[in-house]
Amino acid sequence: GATVTVEHEACLAARVWAWVVTLVIVLGGKVSGFTKRIWKIAADDPRRAVHGLKVGLALALVSVFYYTRPLYDGVGGSAMWAIMTVVVVFEYTVGGCVYKGFNRAAATVSAGAIALGVHWIAANAGHELGPFIRSGSVFLLASMATFSRFIPTVKARFDYGVTIFILTYSLVAVSGYRVESLLALAQQRVCTIGIGIFMCLCVCVLICPVWAGQELHGLTARNMDKLAGAVEACVEDYFADQADGKQQPPSAAAEGYKCVLNSKASEDSQANLARWEPGHGRFGFRHPYEQYKKVGAAMRHCAYCVEALSGCVRSEIQAPEHVKRHLADGCTTVAARCARVLGEAASSVSAMTTSWSLDFAVADMNTAVQELQSDLRELPSKLAEESPALVIDAVQLFTVTSLLIEVSTRVEGVVD
Amino acid sequence: GATVTVEHEACLAARVWAWVVTLVIVLGGKVSGFTKRIWKIAADDPRRAVHGLKVGLALALVSVFYYTRPLYDGVGGSAMWAIMTVVVVFEYTVGGCVYKGFNRAAATVSAGAIALGVHWIAANAGHELGPFIRSGSVFLLASMATFSRFIPTVKARFDYGVTIFILTYSLVAVSGYRVESLLALAQQRVCTIGIGIFMCLCVCVLICPVWAGQELHGLTARNMDKLAGAVEACVEDYFADQADGKQQPPSAAAEGYKCVLNSKASEDSQANLARWEPGHGRFGFRHPYEQYKKVGAAMRHCAYCVEALSGCVRSEIQAPEHVKRHLADGCTTVAARCARVLGEAASSVSAMTTSWSLDFAVADMNTAVQELQSDLRELPSKLAEESPALVIDAVQLFTVTSLLIEVSTRVEGVVD
Repeated sequence: GATVTVEHEACLAARVWAWVVTLVIVLGGKVSGFTKRIWKIAADDPRRAVHGLKVGLALALVSVFYYTRPLYDGVGGSAMWAIMTVVVVFEYTVGGCVYKGFNRAAATVSAGAIALGVHWIAANAGHELGPFIRSGSVFLLASMATFSRFIPTVKARFDYGVTIFILTYSLVAVSGYRVESLLALAQQRVCTIGIGIFMCLCVCVLICPVWAGQELHGLTARNMDKLAGAVEACVEDYFADQADGKQQPPSAAAEGYKCVLNSKASEDSQANLARWEPGHGRFGFRHPYEQYKKVGAAMRHCAYCVEALSGCVRSEIQAPEHVKRHLADGCTTVAARCARVLGEAASSVSAMTTSWSLDFAVADMNTAVQELQSDLRELPSKLAEESPALVIDAVQLFTVTSLLIEVSTRVEGVVD
Repeated sequence: GATVTVEHEACLAARVWAWVVTLVIVLGGKVSGFTKRIWKIAADDPRRAVHGLKVGLALALVSVFYYTRPLYDGVGGSAMWAIMTVVVVFEYTVGGCVYKGFNRAAATVSAGAIALGVHWIAANAGHELGPFIRSGSVFLLASMATFSRFIPTVKARFDYGVTIFILTYSLVAVSGYRVESLLALAQQRVCTIGIGIFMCLCVCVLICPVWAGQELHGLTARNMDKLAGAVEACVEDYFADQADGKQQPPSAAAEGYKCVLNSKASEDSQANLARWEPGHGRFGFRHPYEQYKKVGAAMRHCAYCVEALSGCVRSEIQAPEHVKRHLADGCTTVAARCARVLGEAASSVSAMTTSWSLDFAVADMNTAVQELQSDLRELPSKLAEESPALVIDAVQLFTVTSLLIEVSTRVEGVVD
């Protein structure tokens, strides 16, 4: 009996062991997959990891600063406001940091001043009327301020400030302190918030700063390059396709236009934040960031056309190869020159100069377009009995090209 | 001399008066212009004004609640946390409110628990080591938490929670209180924050609730209708154009596709928030909001094509009128049937049913497309000596149509 039990227990132990091992392996696999994903995020852009360290540093600095001060008096005291300021004001880009810092400071001071006035009125109005004045004013101001967030300008520039305004006003107006002690408290608090904002800005600007303006600049140039690659790759795919008789999957370059289509939101927010940045490097204080939005819109306008073109390239009904061959040279030339114009524009944006080579590239492109047009005009008479599907692609290419010319001329006007 | 002075003074007074009057008129004009803009924002969507009132009401309720409690002890006390919670948690949509409330509660509790543990360790480690443990742990956790915001899932669902986590952890870990008094404080604070969140949710859900899910639903249906209108108007513009010989400005309906192009950001954020909403009306708790994003992407895919089509319609080089007439009927029919499919899809989305009429509409559209294709195939032989520019439009229309078919089949699959 005993041996059976021992064997049974050994068997059970082995099973449990096997189960534990499996669990560890599965968990290990998940953890390593997760670690790889995290590592990829950090490796794609090391500044993200640096940003994390910067936030930690700013918080540690503030906490050390308040340890060494005799004023330090626990959670309820002023240290809290410095920490809170650092946590909410610290943003990835310098522009975001300045935006939040300015909003926080301005909203705290203005709301504090108004609230002190109302507080004084309520204190003098007696115990009956006081609470009504306080709650009523909170209701009124909070409603108005919240509604003001729906105004587009306020939303874009002062959204965070409005939140802080409501918060500060409510806190001060509802508080039970006397006006004199409130004044001292307010002074201390404004000072603390100021120190918090100052520390944030120092850490943000001095250690590996990320400028929203530069990000926007780089994004614009990168998108232009991608668009150039997409135009060229699309047309090449179209003519290479039929060489071995079957559809190929779209190349990575040909999908590049999708980045351009989806970059509106990040462009808008970066242009909003870049406005707050002081001059840095080649960017002045009033650098025309609005222009980047216009260039971005022009590029998207062009990318819509590339999307339609790539739809044609990948459509199931294709023109026979011998028909395509008539226009292959012309189309490839136009696409290559379009790509060159966009490439030149991208490098002239990155270098922030107007270059003659851009003008030459545009002129070359226009010549190629005209040649293609005349080829096109002769084609129908040649191919009267054939399928008209060929003409589609060439003509769409023509549309894309004219859009590209529009884009490139706009870009020329924009680059300073 | 006296009369001269008097006259001079009178003249000056008249000038000053005129200046004041002008100033008042200009200011009045600006104020009335501003008022009109504000009024328009409120009139466009009265729920915005209601939202402002709701925030005011929630804040007033909290302040009244704390006036009537004996616990009330000024700004530093617990009232502050309730007010702060209401100000930052109250959002326009119910989903946003639940998202922020849940994040705030979960982050406060988890960060508080961890911080209490670290606090206890630091307190037992003595005066030498304590500050290092505290500042070091703040640095480490803040860095890791900030970095975690770059992970897409965390960004989409817990962005606000991470901020609150860092804030709470820093406040508790750095505080100079003893562990026992901290426990009492923590309990009180969690309770206060809970009350704040509860009040927010009550006001948000009970008074004119704005559901992110419904907004998303409405947006999708509205965009489909706009797209339908744009397709039809574009083609009609193209053929009506030449009737009186000159280009007309694009009609408002023909510009409708632009809304579809720009709605990605709002769709994404609404789908994110809608996930947090409890079941309401015809929307269950796990309503497939992701599907709306897919439909949205399909519609944008289609809108890119409409954009290219409208570029052709508005291009300077136009086919001669007698050429256009060959295909006018076919194109108009296809466009009208495309619009009907989209319209049917829109109404079937709003009604949340699959209808047979949608299938019929798709079949009709396919028939019209086939007729147009055969018309098109005969055309080149008829028009061999003419310009091929006509073919463009018809063939692009064909592209649009096939995309529309794709969209409508996807929509069919989506509607439950």
